[in-house]
Amino acid sequence: MAWNTNVLVGQSGGPTAAINASLAGVFDTARDLGAHVLGMRYGIEGFLAGRIVHLDRTLGDPMDVELLRRTPASFLGSCRFKLPQPDEDPAFYENAFKKFADARVGAVFYIGGNDSMDTIDKLSRWGNAHNSPIRFIGIPKTIDNDLVGTDHTPGYGSAAKYIATSMREIARDSSVYDLKSVTFVEIMGRDAGWLTGSACLAGTQGNPCPDLVLLPEVTLDQEALLNRLALLLDRKNTIVVAVSEGVRHRDGTLLCEAAAEAADGTRLDAFGHVASLSGTGRYLASVTRAALGCKTRAIELSTLQRCASHVASATDLAEAYSLGGAGVIEAHNGNTGMMSSIRRIFDKPYLYDTVMTPIEDVANKERKVPREFISVDGMNVTALFERYARPLIEGEVSPTYLGGVPHHITPLDGDRA
Amino acid sequence: MAWNTNVLVGQSGGPTAAINASLAGVFDTARDLGAHVLGMRYGIEGFLAGRIVHLDRTLGDPMDVELLRRTPASFLGSCRFKLPQPDEDPAFYENAFKKFADARVGAVFYIGGNDSMDTIDKLSRWGNAHNSPIRFIGIPKTIDNDLVGTDHTPGYGSAAKYIATSMREIARDSSVYDLKSVTFVEIMGRDAGWLTGSACLAGTQGNPCPDLVLLPEVTLDQEALLNRLALLLDRKNTIVVAVSEGVRHRDGTLLCEAAAEAADGTRLDAFGHVASLSGTGRYLASVTRAALGCKTRAIELSTLQRCASHVASATDLAEAYSLGGAGVIEAHNGNTGMMSSIRRIFDKPYLYDTVMTPIEDVANKERKVPREFISVDGMNVTALFERYARPLIEGEVSPTYLGGVPHHITPLDGDRA
Repeated sequence: MAWNTNVLVGQSGGPTAAINASLAGVFDTARDLGAHVLGMRYGIEGFLAGRIVHLDRTLGDPMDVELLRRTPASFLGSCRFKLPQPDEDPAFYENAFKKFADARVGAVFYIGGNDSMDTIDKLSRWGNAHNSPIRFIGIPKTIDNDLVGTDHTPGYGSAAKYIATSMREIARDSSVYDLKSVTFVEIMGRDAGWLTGSACLAGTQGNPCPDLVLLPEVTLDQEALLNRLALLLDRKNTIVVAVSEGVRHRDGTLLCEAAAEAADGTRLDAFGHVASLSGTGRYLASVTRAALGCKTRAIELSTLQRCASHVASATDLAEAYSLGGAGVIEAHNGNTGMMSSIRRIFDKPYLYDTVMTPIEDVANKERKVPREFISVDGMNVTALFERYARPLIEGEVSPTYLGGVPHHITPLDGDRA
Repeated sequence: MAWNTNVLVGQSGGPTAAINASLAGVFDTARDLGAHVLGMRYGIEGFLAGRIVHLDRTLGDPMDVELLRRTPASFLGSCRFKLPQPDEDPAFYENAFKKFADARVGAVFYIGGNDSMDTIDKLSRWGNAHNSPIRFIGIPKTIDNDLVGTDHTPGYGSAAKYIATSMREIARDSSVYDLKSVTFVEIMGRDAGWLTGSACLAGTQGNPCPDLVLLPEVTLDQEALLNRLALLLDRKNTIVVAVSEGVRHRDGTLLCEAAAEAADGTRLDAFGHVASLSGTGRYLASVTRAALGCKTRAIELSTLQRCASHVASATDLAEAYSLGGAGVIEAHNGNTGMMSSIRRIFDKPYLYDTVMTPIEDVANKERKVPREFISVDGMNVTALFERYARPLIEGEVSPTYLGGVPHHITPLDGDRA
C-alpha cells in the first residue's frame, strides 16, 4: 500500500562529498514507497521562512539523482540554526508544527551533524509530548566523524580518502630536491582528530607517511616536537607532518591564535577582524624554520577536503545512500526520534549493517579519538587507527566527466555550478 | 640495427604530474631502440657529483613503468642549477663531457622548463663547437606553460584539470549558506597567468565560474576590483575569484608582499625570515572583508596543483610520454640541440603532432598570456582562452588504487612513498 504522505528532507551544517548521496537515498526510498518529497531550502531556517523545493519535479529524471550522488556540498542549501528549548519557547514549536501540517508532512528527515541531531531530538520530543503523528529521523553527516551512536559518519570516508591521496602526493612533491625540509599539512577538525589521523592512510607497508600526526586531543609540547623533528632530519631529507587546525599550546590557546598574535601583537588581523581558524601550519613552519634552519612549507587543505567528490570513497557514498534509505523505512514503520547508524561487524573484509540509535543518545555528545588510537608519545596514530579508518576509504566512484571536469547536478535557483 | 649506446636522462625544476610520463617515454623508446638508460639522480648537479641510476634495473618490470606514468613529482629527483657560460668557465664543460664519456653516453635528455632548456642549449653548443658525437635534446615540462616554441607544455594540462575540478568543487562548497561571501582561490604562476586562467574551465554553459580571474599580466586596480565585487554581490550570494600568486599593485609590489607588510610593518615574517610567495588570496580576502563587510575566505591550491596525479589529464600524460619518445627518435636520427614540441593542428576535435624546435629559439624566453585571451576589463579570460585550454584537460587516467589510495612507484633510495 502506497505511503500517501509528503515527506520533508533538509540538510544542515557544513558541506561534505556524501551529504547529497544521503539526500538521494531519502528521495529514492520515499518515492519508492509512494510518498511525495519536499526539500527544505537552507535547512529548517529556510523551511520556516516558507522556502520549499518540490523534489519530485527537481529530480524528475533518473540522471538527476545519479548526478546528485556525485555532487558535493549541500544541494538543498544549509543553515546553522539551533532550535530553542521547547519549554522556553513553545510558540516556536507550535509554529513549526503548524507549518509541517500545512505542508501535509508525515515525516521529517534531517541530514547533518551534532546540531542537526539536536534539532531532530527537540522536534521528536515535542511531537511525542503533543501526540503528533509526524515522524522525525536524523541522518548522520559530518566529515569530523565526531557523532556518537554510529561507528562513523558519512562524509568522513570521502574526506579521509582525499586527505590520504593528497598527503601522499604532497610527500612525493616535497622530496624532489636534495635538501632538508619539513612540510606541515593543516587539516580540519577543531576538537576531534579523526580527519587529521586519516592522513596515516597515505602510508604504505614499510614506508609510513606522514612522519608525525598532531591531533587536537593532545596538547602540543613544542620543545619535544622540535627535538623530534631534528632527530628525524638527521635520518632523512624530507619530513611531512599532519597537523589539526585545533592543536593547542599548554596554556590552552590555539596555535593559530598564537600565529596571529606573533604577526601583529593581537588576535586580530591587519584590518581589525578576528583571525580565522587557520594558520596552525604556518605557525609551526615559522617556528621550525627559526629553530632548525631548514626549508619549511605550510599547506592548508582548507575546504577542498570536505567537497572533493572527484575522489570520493565508494564505501562512503554507498553508506550515505543506505542510511538515508534506512531512515525512511524506519519512519514508514511508524518510528520516530531515531538516527540511522552504522554498526561495524568486521574490519577486513569490511562488513556492516544499518541500525537505529535513539536520538537522545546522540544529540550534543562528541566522540574524540580514543587513547589507544594515539601513539604513546602523542605524535602519531597507531595501527588500530589505520585498521579502523582504512575500509572507509576503499572503493572508487567514477565521476561523470564533461569537458574534462566532473559534472554536477544543476544548482537550485540558478546558483553557481 | 640496435642503438648500441648509453643514453642519459634527467629531470629538473619543479615537480609536475606529467614529468614521469616523459621519463617513461624516453625509457621505453630508448630501450626499444636497443640503448641502455642511465638516470641522473637530482638532475645535472647530481650527475656531475657521480649520482647515476641504472634504469634498466630500476624499471625492469613493465608494471614499474606503468606506475611511473601515474606517479607525480620527479622520480629521479630534481635540482635548480644554472650552467655557467661556456666562454667563462670552459673547465666546467670539459669536466662534464669527460663524465659523459666515462659513462659511455651517446645522448642526453633533459626534462624540464626554462632553465633546463638553457642547460641543453649550452651543452649542445659546446658539443657542436668541440665536434662531440653526443646528442642533446630537451623535453619540455612545466605547469606554468610559459615555454615558447611549443603550443603548450606537458604538466600544464594536468595542473589545469586539477584547478578546474577544485574550483568547481570550491564554488559549490561556498554556496551552501544563504549569505553573501567572496572566496579567493590563489593559484601558482608568478609571471604568467596560464594556470590561473585555466580556472575558467570550471564554468559550464550559462554558468561561468569563477566570477573573476586576476592574472599577473594585469596590474591590479584595487578600487575597480572592490567596485566590481560590490556589483556582483548585489546580483548573487556567492562570488569566487581566481587570483594568481603573482598579481602586483600599480607600484610593482606583489600583493603578497603587501600582505606581509600589513601584518607586521615589514616584508619579513614574525621570525625575521622573508615571507614566502603566498598570501595574495589572504590579502584580498582581508581587504574585501574590510571594504564590503561580507564573509570572505582565502584558499591556496599550493603544491597540490602540481602533483595531483590522481586527477591527471589523459591528454597531458599521453603527450608527455610522446614528447619523451620523440626526443629519443630525434637523437637516434643524429640530431642535437632540439626541443620536442607540440604543434596544434585543430582545437575541436583536438589534433596535434610532435615537431622539433631549435633549442636556441626556446631557452631563456618566456611566453605570457596574450592580450586577446584576457577580457577588456582585465578581470577575466576570454572564450579564446577556454578554446585553447579545454582540450588539454580532456580525458581521464585511472590511478592504480591500493588500500583506497593511488599507488605510486617505489621511491629511489628508500625516500618516502
